[in-house]
Amino acid sequence: MTEPDGSTCSLARAVDVVGERWTLLVLREAFVGATRFSEFRARLGIASDVLAARLAKLVDAGLLARQGYREPGQRPRDGYRLTEAGRRLNLVLCALQQWGDEHLPRTATGVAYRSVDGRPVRVRFVDDEGAVVPDDDVRSEPA
Amino acid sequence: MTEPDGSTCSLARAVDVVGERWTLLVLREAFVGATRFSEFRARLGIASDVLAARLAKLVDAGLLARQGYREPGQRPRDGYRLTEAGRRLNLVLCALQQWGDEHLPRTATGVAYRSVDGRPVRVRFVDDEGAVVPDDDVRSEPA
Repeated sequence: MTEPDGSTCSLARAVDVVGERWTLLVLREAFVGATRFSEFRARLGIASDVLAARLAKLVDAGLLARQGYREPGQRPRDGYRLTEAGRRLNLVLCALQQWGDEHLPRTATGVAYRSVDGRPVRVRFVDDEGAVVPDDDVRSEPA
Repeated sequence: MTEPDGSTCSLARAVDVVGERWTLLVLREAFVGATRFSEFRARLGIASDVLAARLAKLVDAGLLARQGYREPGQRPRDGYRLTEAGRRLNLVLCALQQWGDEHLPRTATGVAYRSVDGRPVRVRFVDDEGAVVPDDDVRSEPA
């Protein structure tokens, strides 16, 4: 939303960066380990020009960074790694997938989220003392 | 992502429903109390035809439900209320806004999230025993 002063709220800006199907799916593959153009292409079955555009958009937005690599006997190629800002989107992707699992049920989940000690994790509201707050006990109000 | 069996993962399906700027902003206004067409239009400064299309999409997707109302001396009109599936998106919107606040800083936040007893809440990863898990301690793997 453009506010009267010409700025936009942080939700709107976030959607502008990640609110597109392929962009989020490229990020999903980065989270589960893809770094090379050929890996993203093979896993997503996406056209090369579309993939190149999405990767460039994610680099411009600061969510992926280019990281060169070179196979023996081949020319140097671009690889892609998640930046800090990109890694922090994991929470959003997990929340979105969790909602899809519950409210658009049809097939299995795309990604499993676990803590380093192997426990399944979910995304929840938590108060300033670290206590989980049920979704129904959260109020939204204009900031 | 379309999987080999023609299905799609729950993240991709979720993005198909909500991965559009106006759709998420219409939902944001519903969360902070808008129910009438005129309220959404005034708050968002959105063209009537675009708003009508987004509201219809959200009703079709089961996130909003039509709820008629009638002002004295006027014809009956459509109002819109969040369904259970719509209300559950609050977690996703909060996660997305939180990420925007931290990684696309520019202006104030759009919505404040509080528990019923007035405590500020955030979205976090939580394990199956209710303990908060730091973002960096969460691993994503193909399900």
